[in-house]
Amino acid sequence: MRIAVVGASGQVGAAIRAILAERQYPVEHIRYFGSSRSAGSTLPWGEQLISVEDSATADFSGIDIALMSSGASSSRVVAPRLAESGAIVIDNSSAWRMDPDVPLVVAEVNPHAAQQRPKGIIANPNCTTMAAMPVLKPLHVAAGLRSLVVSTYQAVSGAGRSGVEELAGQVEDSIAGDIRRLTFHGDAFSMAAGENFPGSIAHNVLPKAGSMVDDGLFETVEEQKLRFESRKILEIPDLLVDATCVRVPVFTGHSLSITAAFERPLSVQDAMALLRDAPGVVLHDMPTPRMAAGKDPTYVGRFRRSETVAHGLSMFMSNDNLRKGAALNAVQIAELFL
Amino acid sequence: MRIAVVGASGQVGAAIRAILAERQYPVEHIRYFGSSRSAGSTLPWGEQLISVEDSATADFSGIDIALMSSGASSSRVVAPRLAESGAIVIDNSSAWRMDPDVPLVVAEVNPHAAQQRPKGIIANPNCTTMAAMPVLKPLHVAAGLRSLVVSTYQAVSGAGRSGVEELAGQVEDSIAGDIRRLTFHGDAFSMAAGENFPGSIAHNVLPKAGSMVDDGLFETVEEQKLRFESRKILEIPDLLVDATCVRVPVFTGHSLSITAAFERPLSVQDAMALLRDAPGVVLHDMPTPRMAAGKDPTYVGRFRRSETVAHGLSMFMSNDNLRKGAALNAVQIAELFL
Repeated sequence: MRIAVVGASGQVGAAIRAILAERQYPVEHIRYFGSSRSAGSTLPWGEQLISVEDSATADFSGIDIALMSSGASSSRVVAPRLAESGAIVIDNSSAWRMDPDVPLVVAEVNPHAAQQRPKGIIANPNCTTMAAMPVLKPLHVAAGLRSLVVSTYQAVSGAGRSGVEELAGQVEDSIAGDIRRLTFHGDAFSMAAGENFPGSIAHNVLPKAGSMVDDGLFETVEEQKLRFESRKILEIPDLLVDATCVRVPVFTGHSLSITAAFERPLSVQDAMALLRDAPGVVLHDMPTPRMAAGKDPTYVGRFRRSETVAHGLSMFMSNDNLRKGAALNAVQIAELFL
Repeated sequence: MRIAVVGASGQVGAAIRAILAERQYPVEHIRYFGSSRSAGSTLPWGEQLISVEDSATADFSGIDIALMSSGASSSRVVAPRLAESGAIVIDNSSAWRMDPDVPLVVAEVNPHAAQQRPKGIIANPNCTTMAAMPVLKPLHVAAGLRSLVVSTYQAVSGAGRSGVEELAGQVEDSIAGDIRRLTFHGDAFSMAAGENFPGSIAHNVLPKAGSMVDDGLFETVEEQKLRFESRKILEIPDLLVDATCVRVPVFTGHSLSITAAFERPLSVQDAMALLRDAPGVVLHDMPTPRMAAGKDPTYVGRFRRSETVAHGLSMFMSNDNLRKGAALNAVQIAELFL
């Protein structure tokens, strides 16, 4: 297979390159693409050093599969050009996810959808949605999913390398400023927001992930994505979703606290039995983002019967937002074409 | 008023001493009590230094009001002795909260309950429950609260000074160990649990706060407290509560993401109008624990209409778990007797 990695020098690009090698994807030829800023730099592929090409001006002919992770505005321009050159484009950005002519695929959940791609583009879901899909699909098949109440605990790496730097820098500053004083004074040191998040993220939680949607619902873009992407991937057009997306001071690993309602009874024991052998899922009595970081599956546990909704279950899950949440799923989709 | 502070040298004891002074509570005479370990040490009251007495052996006569924060097992022994000596006992521990002969009081919400105290003891709610009560009460009066789905973001100071030290120590260790590596490897440095929490809390979230209840429901003690204490304080015996209690790497300030269902319609605008002048509540478009730390009110915002439950609203709130969550409410109850 002749592979292109677009956005090769970013966080997700780095994870895509590592995972292609780890999973021994049969790469016959590989090309790296990036912005004009990163063009000309080199990145490794095994023993070789590959030069990064400028995706704005490159000739894309001869590529079988392009794994893209270069942001939505870049993707709107570059993805159609790649598809026109004959590549199957697997895109990580939000640009194409809700396009009815673009399948939105989680490899374990709806691989069949990848076969219909009128635009030559397949979209990778948002990392928060992704974490939940391998867990919810088997439960939906068994009991008919009706609604989700979700509160998230999202890592800073979801905002890219600069999000990681922002948290790391604030943590380092706080050590210099005596973090113990935060016990009695939230404003013991600067609460100034950085560039990535709407407030200081070190030793804090920020209940606003992404910008606000201007539709009178007071939701953020992240909260809407969870609803619309879950409906499309699970093929439940009337799935009801209340999501509250919250950034927490964690480097990698998104977590979700979910109370789900089903059409038919589903016991804690039956749910756990269904998930014991589910692909991409590992049961654990206390899933954490640090457990999930660097690993493939969604760790899920804390199953409890809900008393607020009929046939309801509460659960908690953690997943690596850079791997399965982005890079791994893209590579798994590429594996569908082997 | 002749005041006793029991557990005077603890985190909450320190906050009680500070808040009595801040609010100019009319203290005629003050005594400090503690364990045999802290007995004999001195702590300030204004310009004076007060010697800490051993609560196990002290003579409690002549005390009007005792503000206790010394843990449940100590309280079971000491609170009845204090009450027998004629003091009104305001206790912060979990020992008496569910006792039908002990009122459970949030000063702004159910002050009337403090008038009936057959045992001479008034209980202060758990700090997580406390945060939500001043917000939920006016909404309940207006629209009839039926159910709550709650996910929490709880600070380490809820586990006492040693919880604060555990997070601070792990953060300091992680700086030495290059925290940026956590972006790709959750296990980049030790994930060993400390003494207070069931896993490493720095740069992590732990979806298990408190011990598990052995009743086949797979809940923690914290999750049960939210249900039972909310029912008692709001006087809604059949209130349905699904709670998931999660510890986050925040020093002080508990936050709650809540989706509430009501009997009657309640719009986002009406809910916000009801809370604009509610005691102990401040509206904010992005409440955070660092905003709440060191402050009295519960900051609440992110109101959205729920689509999963009838007449539902989602919201997010943050409150200082040491102040209103413990010390301030105890002092406010003491103020009811002026």
